[in-house]
Amino acid sequence: MRVTTIQAPGEIRLEERPVPGITAPTDAVIKVTASCICGSDLWPYRGANEVTPGSTIGHEMVGVIEEVGADVRSFAPGDFVVVPFCTCDNTCPHCLNGAQSACVNGGFTTGAQGEYGLVTQAEGSLVKTDGMPDAEMIPSLLTLSDVFPTGWHCAVAAGVKKGDTVVVVGDGAVGLCGVLAAAQMGAERVVAMSRHEPRQAIARAFGATDIVAQRGREGAEAIKDLTDGVGADAVLECVGTDDAMKQAFTVARPGSTVGFVGAPHGVELPVRRMFVKNIGLAGGMAPVRRYLPELLELVTTGAVQPGLVFDTVLPLDEVAAGYRAMDERTAVKVLLQP
Amino acid sequence: MRVTTIQAPGEIRLEERPVPGITAPTDAVIKVTASCICGSDLWPYRGANEVTPGSTIGHEMVGVIEEVGADVRSFAPGDFVVVPFCTCDNTCPHCLNGAQSACVNGGFTTGAQGEYGLVTQAEGSLVKTDGMPDAEMIPSLLTLSDVFPTGWHCAVAAGVKKGDTVVVVGDGAVGLCGVLAAAQMGAERVVAMSRHEPRQAIARAFGATDIVAQRGREGAEAIKDLTDGVGADAVLECVGTDDAMKQAFTVARPGSTVGFVGAPHGVELPVRRMFVKNIGLAGGMAPVRRYLPELLELVTTGAVQPGLVFDTVLPLDEVAAGYRAMDERTAVKVLLQP
Repeated sequence: MRVTTIQAPGEIRLEERPVPGITAPTDAVIKVTASCICGSDLWPYRGANEVTPGSTIGHEMVGVIEEVGADVRSFAPGDFVVVPFCTCDNTCPHCLNGAQSACVNGGFTTGAQGEYGLVTQAEGSLVKTDGMPDAEMIPSLLTLSDVFPTGWHCAVAAGVKKGDTVVVVGDGAVGLCGVLAAAQMGAERVVAMSRHEPRQAIARAFGATDIVAQRGREGAEAIKDLTDGVGADAVLECVGTDDAMKQAFTVARPGSTVGFVGAPHGVELPVRRMFVKNIGLAGGMAPVRRYLPELLELVTTGAVQPGLVFDTVLPLDEVAAGYRAMDERTAVKVLLQP
Repeated sequence: MRVTTIQAPGEIRLEERPVPGITAPTDAVIKVTASCICGSDLWPYRGANEVTPGSTIGHEMVGVIEEVGADVRSFAPGDFVVVPFCTCDNTCPHCLNGAQSACVNGGFTTGAQGEYGLVTQAEGSLVKTDGMPDAEMIPSLLTLSDVFPTGWHCAVAAGVKKGDTVVVVGDGAVGLCGVLAAAQMGAERVVAMSRHEPRQAIARAFGATDIVAQRGREGAEAIKDLTDGVGADAVLECVGTDDAMKQAFTVARPGSTVGFVGAPHGVELPVRRMFVKNIGLAGGMAPVRRYLPELLELVTTGAVQPGLVFDTVLPLDEVAAGYRAMDERTAVKVLLQP
């Protein structure tokens, strides 16, 4: 089968590999219907993470079950499933506590940017749809694999509640999903910090009430003006860089919480400011499975359309162009069709 | 009047200064009944904070109102009051949101380790007792000025709830008050990390169910053993050093929150671990006034006796010996009588 590999920073190559088989009774093999490129795939692409030459890359997919291991009882070949990027047994103490991304038997989905993916802990990780979804539903279902629950987790971690003023730092697909989440949770005002017109448009479609194009000190001043000098009730940091984190803390009101879901790269937390202003930090790698029942319902009923984050659709053969487009920010998020 | 000053690290001196007078209509002057030395007073004493030679030091006190400014309507000379170390108008947006320590008109109580203290924003900051309290009630009332609400805030920030297993890092007076707070909030198991027998005894009196004397990796292993490998549901970091903070994150279970209330000194937050394990950080300088109505009730009804943290009582004249005793950890907390 064809599957996406990374050879070196900037070097994405589709290669021929054997179709994955069941290696443990908890596994499932998925025939990929659609997959996509994650912002976190750009870390190794940009050389910010170490690269093992020739390793496969890609962890977001939806598809049809091809084969299951002996311990997988709730799913059978032919089921259409959403595959969380991080897998979990959904029964360990961490899973039962809502921290599925720290499952004691957890792992990561592999082979998603290919024709067939492998999922460990399939029983605890997967959710299936009622029958085969319509083609137009696929993009939104695909966001359930990672990006939408990740934005959602950021809003949950930041403690967004009805009536809040929420600021979202980062206008990537995760930040946009954070806007959607905050709006769904009843935030009265959702401010997207974005200077890219196409992304601003998606943010507005997702419920952003205000756009702040400035950054740094100017961005903080703009938020101050918008909030009568008080600051935001909750802030979603959806990037993972030190600049974004610092920005988040400059706009958060005393006593509030910054939610964060971008894998931190070079972040030094402003602990002194956190102390003096009583601004907390919460979040981390999203426990996708925890949110799936609720978010699947939102998607399948049409209450939300997170699939709007996909502004580019490419055949799998053009995956390298997809990475380039996301790296250069000419695409918000790229959907791949095997 | 006599008041405590710091001349240089390690050099505490009682000096003669004018009795403070009203400088703003929101001020109150308090005749000090009792004051005490704070763990945070040790930072400049140990040279970890900058020292302005000859500046007064001390911010915790209870006493009797001597004089009030024109805007102070709820208090009159003769009232016995608890004085929060940080003052607030209790009406600004931050105060109304429970972040009184970030009040836009906030400041710090001064002159507490003396005969008369000055309080700004007296109307919003002070609480009074019904009449003059009995002498044996004074120590517990004095803890309301800082140390007990600070320990309480740590438990609130860490999200302690009924049935939890809570680990408290730090066996200073704040940590001990954190133990008391966690027990009051219904924690099933409260683990005090302490290797000092007299402090362990106070911890047990406050509701600690377990004592862990080990630190570092061994301490983390001990907590792991106590929690069937899961980790603590909530962790209270009550020191402010990097070692204590690191310890807190090693014992917190995934998805939990570390509460922190010790002014951070040299702390580098383990942001990567926080991300991977979804462990949050919340807290900061305690919004004392927020908790006073509830905690004053607990103290005056005798439901709790936080005054047990005072194992040493000294006349104000011996304040320098009090600092030495706390610096050398031969005293848990020193109460000063003017």
